[in-house]
Amino acid sequence: MITVFSDAHALHDGKAELHDGKLVTSFEMPRRAALVLSRVTEVGLGPVIPPSAFGLDPVKRVHAPDYVDFLAGAWDAWVAEHGAYDALPFTWIAPGMRRVVPDHIDGKLGYYSFDAGTPITAGTFQAVRAAADVALTGAQLVARGERGAFALTRPPGHHAHRACYGGYCFFNNAAIAAQALRDTGAERVCVLDIDYHHGNGTQDIFYDRGDVLFVSLHADPVQEYPYFLGFADETGTGAGEGANANYPLPFGTGFEAWSAALDHALARIAAFGAEALVVSLGVDTYKGDPISRFRLDTADYPTIGGMLAGLRLPTLFVMEGGYAVEAIGVNAVGVLQGFEAAA
Amino acid sequence: MITVFSDAHALHDGKAELHDGKLVTSFEMPRRAALVLSRVTEVGLGPVIPPSAFGLDPVKRVHAPDYVDFLAGAWDAWVAEHGAYDALPFTWIAPGMRRVVPDHIDGKLGYYSFDAGTPITAGTFQAVRAAADVALTGAQLVARGERGAFALTRPPGHHAHRACYGGYCFFNNAAIAAQALRDTGAERVCVLDIDYHHGNGTQDIFYDRGDVLFVSLHADPVQEYPYFLGFADETGTGAGEGANANYPLPFGTGFEAWSAALDHALARIAAFGAEALVVSLGVDTYKGDPISRFRLDTADYPTIGGMLAGLRLPTLFVMEGGYAVEAIGVNAVGVLQGFEAAA
Repeated sequence: MITVFSDAHALHDGKAELHDGKLVTSFEMPRRAALVLSRVTEVGLGPVIPPSAFGLDPVKRVHAPDYVDFLAGAWDAWVAEHGAYDALPFTWIAPGMRRVVPDHIDGKLGYYSFDAGTPITAGTFQAVRAAADVALTGAQLVARGERGAFALTRPPGHHAHRACYGGYCFFNNAAIAAQALRDTGAERVCVLDIDYHHGNGTQDIFYDRGDVLFVSLHADPVQEYPYFLGFADETGTGAGEGANANYPLPFGTGFEAWSAALDHALARIAAFGAEALVVSLGVDTYKGDPISRFRLDTADYPTIGGMLAGLRLPTLFVMEGGYAVEAIGVNAVGVLQGFEAAA
Repeated sequence: MITVFSDAHALHDGKAELHDGKLVTSFEMPRRAALVLSRVTEVGLGPVIPPSAFGLDPVKRVHAPDYVDFLAGAWDAWVAEHGAYDALPFTWIAPGMRRVVPDHIDGKLGYYSFDAGTPITAGTFQAVRAAADVALTGAQLVARGERGAFALTRPPGHHAHRACYGGYCFFNNAAIAAQALRDTGAERVCVLDIDYHHGNGTQDIFYDRGDVLFVSLHADPVQEYPYFLGFADETGTGAGEGANANYPLPFGTGFEAWSAALDHALARIAAFGAEALVVSLGVDTYKGDPISRFRLDTADYPTIGGMLAGLRLPTLFVMEGGYAVEAIGVNAVGVLQGFEAAA
């Protein structure tokens, strides 16, 4: 399997996030991608190639143009106001307030975000552009006939809404790739999100569309971030009615219950008739993850890959979360190895 | 003039707030109230009395019961999850997310708040209850015939919405007092907010009501916190249409422009026919304030008090913001002295 990777991910290197009431070292760090890449090489998964440059047009197919423009200029605006250190928003829009774009960067940060855990740094915009290119290059490989491809994206993307960042995510790499697959010929595409956290951004982007099925297995939002989306009764709206499926699972879920939910999800995907599959590949379902509470083990990840291969669909894996840094490579690449073995 | 004061304010002693991307020492600190009290005594403004206990019923006249219950239990829920240090929310509801109350305290904090600058501490609920009692005791004094009274409340209140905290505010002391004045006989009440920041919470609470006029002079929200409310075109809704008046003013506003806006506001208040006035008294309009950008000087505050006295209304002053700590006493009490001299 070909891996697409760009060193530019390391330009996004946030110092701190607000977590449990404290500013702590960012869990989402460059070392994550480096360790996944090492494991790709170590096991001989296949070639590692750099991304092609696609520009921002395919990004704006799923993100609001004003949001993209905001991200492009946010760092400079922040530095002009506060100085050259990481930007964090500090205030948001309460019920009863208005959705108006302020002139001041502090107000803009709140307008376009939903948490205080996602720093914007000097290199963030370059890194997220590169990640989109990685995802788009992966989508191109799949569109051209590869059975599977791995977009080793960082920062992750699945929490990014059409016009809001959060959860370490800015551009929704998986959504950008799914849209590109649609735009290059696939009539129906599925995004399957197996990250520990709900893919609220991907759901938001495709919620009213019937051509992209979004399916997510994740920690129940009554207990876990992002809290305000990801419930089982969210089934899509308008033309998208029936094309959104959430599987919220409780704290402590182990592989037996998790894989039963995946079996159910795979049957739905098969029934949908997708021509291509994008997998939002988070491995924070791992029992050793420092900010997550599922109980999957390293041996489970190749099994997951095998189950995904059973769909017999051209499949793009897009890297999302996973914060047990020492294990992230083995677990993420384990899924890919399992897929390859069964494909 | 009688001052109502409770030592219990000091039980709310937040260590840090997220400000300019960093966790910094809270600007809203116990010393603020202590220095205002010292100045009250120093100039012999009048007696200082403790509040009576009114319970939570008058608080729930303006705040949602579930919000009050949340605040009552937030600290214990936080400690059970994270330990005994200040609680700060870290994630909020983006557009496209749902307003559902999560089970987890981190989700609840986001549901009921709109910034990361307002810590909940061990004594916060006791302090905010005491502040509400201070405001209610002040309202009772005015209802019983005092020409003026000073509710030396802390923490402040005017940013607190019906069901959301933020901007250092939890219970909206001024709104609670205004409602109490209505409930004890005044047919029409006005809340005039002269804090540097828009009183978004007070506006939210009374926006659909014609019996309480809300008037606010403040920094333009396109430039300044709270960013998403406080524009000139917000004039009330339904029965409240015409009973909300905002005077957004640019960074750098000095007393000439500020007092011209106040003159206009006072004419509106006079035309409304209020039977009582509640003044949200913030003195962060002061040129030396560390987080504000107006240019009022110490000599201006007695002048303001004199202008307010010209309304010839029973007047309750409720303490709000002011973060130039060394000057807060002189400036806040200056308004009261000017009022007394002209009353």
